[in-house]
Amino acid sequence: MSELRWDPLKLHWVIIATDRGRRPRDFQVETEAAEMTSCPFCYGNENKTPGEIFAIRSSGPPNSPNWKVRVIPNKYPALRIEGDLNKRGYGLYDVMSGIGAHEIIVETPDHERGLADLTPAEITDVLVAYRTRYLDLRKDLRFRYMVLFKNHGTRAGATLSHAHSQLIAVPLTPPVAATELKICREFYDTKERCIFCDLIEFELSAGDRVVREFANFVTVTPYASCFPFELRLYPKKHSHDFALMNDGQLSELAVALKDMLLRLKTVLKDPPYNFILHTAPPMQQRLGKPEYWSSISYDYHWHIELVPRLTQIAGFEWGTGFFINPTSPEDAAAFLREAEI
Amino acid sequence: MSELRWDPLKLHWVIIATDRGRRPRDFQVETEAAEMTSCPFCYGNENKTPGEIFAIRSSGPPNSPNWKVRVIPNKYPALRIEGDLNKRGYGLYDVMSGIGAHEIIVETPDHERGLADLTPAEITDVLVAYRTRYLDLRKDLRFRYMVLFKNHGTRAGATLSHAHSQLIAVPLTPPVAATELKICREFYDTKERCIFCDLIEFELSAGDRVVREFANFVTVTPYASCFPFELRLYPKKHSHDFALMNDGQLSELAVALKDMLLRLKTVLKDPPYNFILHTAPPMQQRLGKPEYWSSISYDYHWHIELVPRLTQIAGFEWGTGFFINPTSPEDAAAFLREAEI
Repeated sequence: MSELRWDPLKLHWVIIATDRGRRPRDFQVETEAAEMTSCPFCYGNENKTPGEIFAIRSSGPPNSPNWKVRVIPNKYPALRIEGDLNKRGYGLYDVMSGIGAHEIIVETPDHERGLADLTPAEITDVLVAYRTRYLDLRKDLRFRYMVLFKNHGTRAGATLSHAHSQLIAVPLTPPVAATELKICREFYDTKERCIFCDLIEFELSAGDRVVREFANFVTVTPYASCFPFELRLYPKKHSHDFALMNDGQLSELAVALKDMLLRLKTVLKDPPYNFILHTAPPMQQRLGKPEYWSSISYDYHWHIELVPRLTQIAGFEWGTGFFINPTSPEDAAAFLREAEI
Repeated sequence: MSELRWDPLKLHWVIIATDRGRRPRDFQVETEAAEMTSCPFCYGNENKTPGEIFAIRSSGPPNSPNWKVRVIPNKYPALRIEGDLNKRGYGLYDVMSGIGAHEIIVETPDHERGLADLTPAEITDVLVAYRTRYLDLRKDLRFRYMVLFKNHGTRAGATLSHAHSQLIAVPLTPPVAATELKICREFYDTKERCIFCDLIEFELSAGDRVVREFANFVTVTPYASCFPFELRLYPKKHSHDFALMNDGQLSELAVALKDMLLRLKTVLKDPPYNFILHTAPPMQQRLGKPEYWSSISYDYHWHIELVPRLTQIAGFEWGTGFFINPTSPEDAAAFLREAEI
């Protein structure tokens, strides 16, 4: 069982693997990138993963080939689904059991294609799988937030090269989400407007950080980008919850997402990246323990944040919370706009 | 001139290189680690760096060989020392000019030895250089905080292998420092005690995260470590400001610092790491613009934080502010305690 530990000076939670932890020599092995000879995410290897939770497939029973998208529990989960939180204090610290869910969304059976290479229809299937799992995990009232993210490339933390995303349900609202939700709430309290809607309107009128505008979505480089070629993909119309998108909206999003990934792949030669889906926490879960943003879903605005992993996060960034970005977002947007895709 | 840009939703400042920014092909080059044929930090190459600001030397004029520790301006500074801050708004954002100082402390003339390999007397010289530069930069009232850090190894962000640390003076209190200072203040307001003193006492009595205890210093692995083998080096007696340490105290610190670095080097085979010196912002600078922690130097507790760079920061960490640590701090402390150094 892992533990969630709270640092009262940094104000962060850490998931600590207290059993079966990694020893010094395990880290020396990591430097040699080892590709598995047999990929557990390929057709025919369905028995090498835990049994599937969800799949979109053309034919056949669960855990057989012929699927298009497949969702499975992570074989080595950061958090485990069974048990109680057992919240307690420890000196000045806080600690609780590592309860949660950790799922893998295998985006395609094709070992050679990345998410950027899939067709919009195939990407739509991936987005449908995201939505399905969001809606299902919301039924578990121990979970306060779901983190959907993708690590592409070894440098971005992917341990398997076969295209996949991950969904982690956590028993606490994560600090990054809590800050955004709080600021949205305060802005709405004062102005009765969504701060993201204001930002999107400002970016559309400024124009120099817009990478591509679609009918209902827009891709921009953030004004205060922490990293070179950082990207945000926003729905233009106000929408607090990704999981409420209908099939038509997911099809449009698939086109915008492919456009963003393909521009990045073209301009930076398939760089490692992480993307994270930011969305409002579900109402049912918030009712578990009312928090001060308990009724603010309407003032949040879901979006996707993408960070290419081109530079190292060094001592300065870690020690300060400041970031040094050697490429202006205006330059990055120009390069991405002009990409021939 | 670079810019400091504020993100109103993430609550962070980013230093953006708006001129001479890096283009896409610059990032493709970075993947090939290129070692310079002639090191600008070695004896005889003093003219390849900007003129020295400070040096400890046995003989000779400035910018000649025979120095023991040498401080120079960074040739490619993140922030520039000349100019006004020119604080202004931009839509929902804030922006100011990238004013600050960026110095390099070359720790030894010996290209082959790392900080862990230096003698305690040599490390004391490095610490004296740190203190000297802290005290000098405090005279510039535009600077609110000084960040002293070291990147060791390419994976930790070091672009030159010759042992060096960096000192960046910034015109704002960095978010990480601001949070710590605020929490120290609130704790002191309530209890009239230093929260760090309480934590140190708790760790000394718990014992299972203590790596090494000296008369006046102690090295521990933090209870809520974000990364495997993360370390903190604390002065055991309350002390808010590193720059007020006398020569005798710096000599003792040198012994404790060498012990910490050598244990890490032995157990993890010279891993890449970052360390950061956390200390109270100076009084003179705080008087520039009174802030709410303007009089709290007495409730802060300076210390060194060290993070080995063994694992990748991936999408989950970036997207949530949660961290997953695969090695418990208790296990890490045991390995480090038992190291034969």
